[in-house]
Amino acid sequence: MDQRKLTTPVAIPNVTVHDSFFSNLMKITVEKLLPYQWKALNDEIPDAAPSYCMRNFRIAAGVETGEHGGMVFQDSDLAKWIEAAAYTLYWNPDAELEKTVDEAIELVRRAQLPDGYIDTYYILTGIENRWTNTKDNHEMYCAGHMLEAAVAYYHATGKRTLLDVMIRNVAHIASVIGPEEGKIHGYPGHEVLEMALCKLYEITQDPAHLALAAYFVNERGQSPNHFEVETEKRGLQVKPESPFNLKYYQADVPVREQTAAEGHAVRAGYLYSGMADVARLTGDESLAEACRRLWYNITRRQMYITGTVGQSSIAESFTFDYDLPNDLVYGETCAAISMAFFAQRMLRLAPRGEYADVMERVLYNGSISGMSLDGTKFFYVNPLEVDPAKCAHNHQFRHVKPERQKWFGCACCPPNLGRLIASLPGYLYHTCDDTVYVNLYTTNEMKTALTSGEAALSMTTNYPWDGTIQMTVDAAPAAMTLALRIPGWCRQYTVLVNGETVTAAPQDGYLYLTRDWQAGDQVTLTLEMPVVTVRANPKVAENVGKIAVMRGPVVYCLEEPDNGPHLARVYMDANAAFTTQWEPETLGGIVSLDTAGYELGIADWDEDELYTEQKAPAFSARPLHFIPYYAWANRGPAEMTVWVRERL
Amino acid sequence: MDQRKLTTPVAIPNVTVHDSFFSNLMKITVEKLLPYQWKALNDEIPDAAPSYCMRNFRIAAGVETGEHGGMVFQDSDLAKWIEAAAYTLYWNPDAELEKTVDEAIELVRRAQLPDGYIDTYYILTGIENRWTNTKDNHEMYCAGHMLEAAVAYYHATGKRTLLDVMIRNVAHIASVIGPEEGKIHGYPGHEVLEMALCKLYEITQDPAHLALAAYFVNERGQSPNHFEVETEKRGLQVKPESPFNLKYYQADVPVREQTAAEGHAVRAGYLYSGMADVARLTGDESLAEACRRLWYNITRRQMYITGTVGQSSIAESFTFDYDLPNDLVYGETCAAISMAFFAQRMLRLAPRGEYADVMERVLYNGSISGMSLDGTKFFYVNPLEVDPAKCAHNHQFRHVKPERQKWFGCACCPPNLGRLIASLPGYLYHTCDDTVYVNLYTTNEMKTALTSGEAALSMTTNYPWDGTIQMTVDAAPAAMTLALRIPGWCRQYTVLVNGETVTAAPQDGYLYLTRDWQAGDQVTLTLEMPVVTVRANPKVAENVGKIAVMRGPVVYCLEEPDNGPHLARVYMDANAAFTTQWEPETLGGIVSLDTAGYELGIADWDEDELYTEQKAPAFSARPLHFIPYYAWANRGPAEMTVWVRERL
Repeated sequence: MDQRKLTTPVAIPNVTVHDSFFSNLMKITVEKLLPYQWKALNDEIPDAAPSYCMRNFRIAAGVETGEHGGMVFQDSDLAKWIEAAAYTLYWNPDAELEKTVDEAIELVRRAQLPDGYIDTYYILTGIENRWTNTKDNHEMYCAGHMLEAAVAYYHATGKRTLLDVMIRNVAHIASVIGPEEGKIHGYPGHEVLEMALCKLYEITQDPAHLALAAYFVNERGQSPNHFEVETEKRGLQVKPESPFNLKYYQADVPVREQTAAEGHAVRAGYLYSGMADVARLTGDESLAEACRRLWYNITRRQMYITGTVGQSSIAESFTFDYDLPNDLVYGETCAAISMAFFAQRMLRLAPRGEYADVMERVLYNGSISGMSLDGTKFFYVNPLEVDPAKCAHNHQFRHVKPERQKWFGCACCPPNLGRLIASLPGYLYHTCDDTVYVNLYTTNEMKTALTSGEAALSMTTNYPWDGTIQMTVDAAPAAMTLALRIPGWCRQYTVLVNGETVTAAPQDGYLYLTRDWQAGDQVTLTLEMPVVTVRANPKVAENVGKIAVMRGPVVYCLEEPDNGPHLARVYMDANAAFTTQWEPETLGGIVSLDTAGYELGIADWDEDELYTEQKAPAFSARPLHFIPYYAWANRGPAEMTVWVRERL
Repeated sequence: MDQRKLTTPVAIPNVTVHDSFFSNLMKITVEKLLPYQWKALNDEIPDAAPSYCMRNFRIAAGVETGEHGGMVFQDSDLAKWIEAAAYTLYWNPDAELEKTVDEAIELVRRAQLPDGYIDTYYILTGIENRWTNTKDNHEMYCAGHMLEAAVAYYHATGKRTLLDVMIRNVAHIASVIGPEEGKIHGYPGHEVLEMALCKLYEITQDPAHLALAAYFVNERGQSPNHFEVETEKRGLQVKPESPFNLKYYQADVPVREQTAAEGHAVRAGYLYSGMADVARLTGDESLAEACRRLWYNITRRQMYITGTVGQSSIAESFTFDYDLPNDLVYGETCAAISMAFFAQRMLRLAPRGEYADVMERVLYNGSISGMSLDGTKFFYVNPLEVDPAKCAHNHQFRHVKPERQKWFGCACCPPNLGRLIASLPGYLYHTCDDTVYVNLYTTNEMKTALTSGEAALSMTTNYPWDGTIQMTVDAAPAAMTLALRIPGWCRQYTVLVNGETVTAAPQDGYLYLTRDWQAGDQVTLTLEMPVVTVRANPKVAENVGKIAVMRGPVVYCLEEPDNGPHLARVYMDANAAFTTQWEPETLGGIVSLDTAGYELGIADWDEDELYTEQKAPAFSARPLHFIPYYAWANRGPAEMTVWVRERL
């Protein structure tokens, strides 16, 4: 990689977001998601299965008695909650919340064993069994999330308690696992610790921290295979034909030999993110190349138009190139989120607009679709086509829900969304030397230190509903370069600097504006945002003969409350004319789209005819009303489809 | 029902089939299927998991020692083999085979306990547990199949040993289960004993035998629910949200209240068949009405164009109306076969052509697709659309195989197909008073006793490849009525009697020809058999915008060896012109079809484009070659599709 092109995100405290779109999500996170989740962690939600999460920590800390409850990875729920809470403290200081976090951290500290070990599952069920099943029992997954929480809380508050706890925990892990003789030559069964260690290294600059991350990445899939060795020690075997085979863990071959995203999608997304971090911090070009290869495979072969990934409910996994079923999809909210993580890390390796394009695709579509507009209900699975009857009566579709659920026994998605949204300001800008990369467009103010001095920008826009972005340079060093991302979806745009048109061609998706910036300089970027009908590569069998509707970064869908049932019988023309309307009172404020479509009629068909050669298709006019995909399923269970049949 | 219209099949020994289509299947059954299966039952197939079936009987009979092996229903494999063997003895006498059957029967006789009990699973694993889990442990399923075998072998050979064994077994079952106080108020967890008991009653005329069948049918789903009561006794619960809930067993409500086919498809098909038998033998109109309602639901809402049923692999079950996924389908060979059983029994209740239509649909398509053309490999699952990559790499499609398998651990389908094919002569004709109903067209000779005397017919045809059927009345009583089925698929036909055109309208699918028949009278029926493109009711979301190709009763498909890959990108016009050719050397002799189609091109698409609004669909000409669906997958793993996209 070109080390000179490495970019650094502008940190959350330096970006103040106050637009209507993301601010609302951030507000929901603070007002609804975090308090609700804290209650859930403390088993205080009536009618919901208990989490046992905090109870496990209290028992392990010796302040309560009892047995471990919940999943083997239950500790991670607290970690993700702390991490999300930490991010909110930047932009929504809250002494009460901070006190609650401190108390939780104190429990974690007291639960930690003298040797640094911390996982409540093994502490409470039999410490003698720890480190015997790294494949499935999530000790390093929990450690990874808690380390991410520790880093976030340290950055947000300067408090080191949890950070120091986790540094001791990492030291313990490094004493057990590593390349040295006598240690386990292993790596996490569920990745996340890799990227957490890189974050830690960026604070501590302790080479041991980066070395452990690199070891995990480099050892993965090597022969003899750690998971096979470990499983055989337990008298069992990793079966190649099982959905939970080595591919499930991205451990069938070393990571540099992996050419297609495989296995459990969240694990995969977290691994690839960690790989990109290690590549950046160690300058490892072969690892960066592996990241680019996997990125290419995902984004050109296995990613839904919504940014969702993970096609199969069995093992929540990637399947194979161009296999993108819309109705049977898994598309876990966490998997989409992991793609935002991966995208941001690829952007740090090189400032290419396509990485930010995917970040945007995920942020406006397949991630936030996981939460109801009021922040109280959640999807685990994010389908692109739903028939509630199928969910109810065909068990093969039981994983797909036509309505968001209150909470989950395996509650990974809601807190994951919380930490993404709470950290959103950190995705807007990257910098490199004297260049400010503007990745995402939303109303905000930013300041950052460039090589030659302070820069400050303010931005006003009604994005994603409008493509006009007004920026003011509030401060700038001489020769600052402003790199404006021209989104991949955008075909026409104009840039004015102080009212004068600038003509320049974007390089790798960014338009570079270098000049002697003065405070008060005005930049107006106008991204033409017509409604477009999009086709998938015909190699995607599922979408042959279908089109999707987009406007700017927003993917649209047809939903039953607006369009009635039987969406499978709806057709449209690719060149149909659309009208757009801003509906401030609908679904939290959306631009909705209307067009003329067709319905394949059934009037000709007798009730008792199932197959016949005697009926020609009869189409009638059917007006179509599209809403943004992320806003579906907020009006009761209903049919929905993103891809609509095209009359060819 | 109208008791005067009840019909009776002309028995197998009275019909000699010697056409090229079915005779070949029958020959394969005798020469390949039965010997292979006998080896399998005796664990003599190298590289295959042992069946343990005969070994279990030998151990139970006291001639060998050991433990029970295989599934809880393993006994039924021997039963289905005996039944199939029995049918073949009519048209292929074989003293060696008969001796083998007699020896097997002797083992069964010796395995039977003094009280009449016979199931080797409980005999070998703990007799004290028998009758504690009628829901899942298949005692009555095995008894049902063995009773069907006993009846078939008695009819074919006159030998009573197995029949007497099973009469004692039935007496034992009736002593344990029934309406009387102290007995279990239960019924089989997997139906089949109901129809077997009706067959037994037709031999014995013992009212107890019919009463037990009627009790099973009438008690099913009554409250308190037998399966719930029984499961609670074992300290467990039948969970409504489980795929193995009461619907799975067709036991959630009494059978007369069931309006849609539900649950495990084979169980359902066997239950409905038993219901039709009981309705006929008891004259129970409310039960006949329930049969007609369920028949209507299946054939107008839940049956594939191939006659296949059972949409979901999870619990091998029916799902809901108009839900007919082509690729995800289960479509067990046994389930299609059960539809032939149900159809024949509905035909006994009333001579309506639609019943024989389904019999024909199943026989030429979704049942025989379960066996390779050489009779050595078998499908459990019969999909209508296959992409081998999906079967290999998307675990949600793991139940679908792109190639037939050598044998199955749960080997229900091959022997079931064996007994269907071996008994095929028994499906051709039904009679009622002086009427001969001609249900199926194939080269054969038949004789039967009508009310007024003997009738004999001979028939020559190249059906299903040609619609001309030449019949000779070899003997007939005065005023015999010949009722020729005019298939539901046939739009134009002519009937000549001794060269003179007869004009008559079919009633309920049969054309009634009543006259003073003389020996030597010639009847020529010509069914116009053009290639037609068929659409599904648009309520079937899966098939919207698609057409299927049929010629006569035969459903066609596109397969990769003839058409190359990427069948999902193939389009055609509904009014495309077809050429037909008889290919005697191809796939056992078929009529293949050719037409001009289109391919949705990918040439415009860059390798790295997954979604774009910039590519218009580009079609190019692509010749299409169709083969009969039943003959697919005989040339290696390959893509296949029955439903083809239509350019609209």
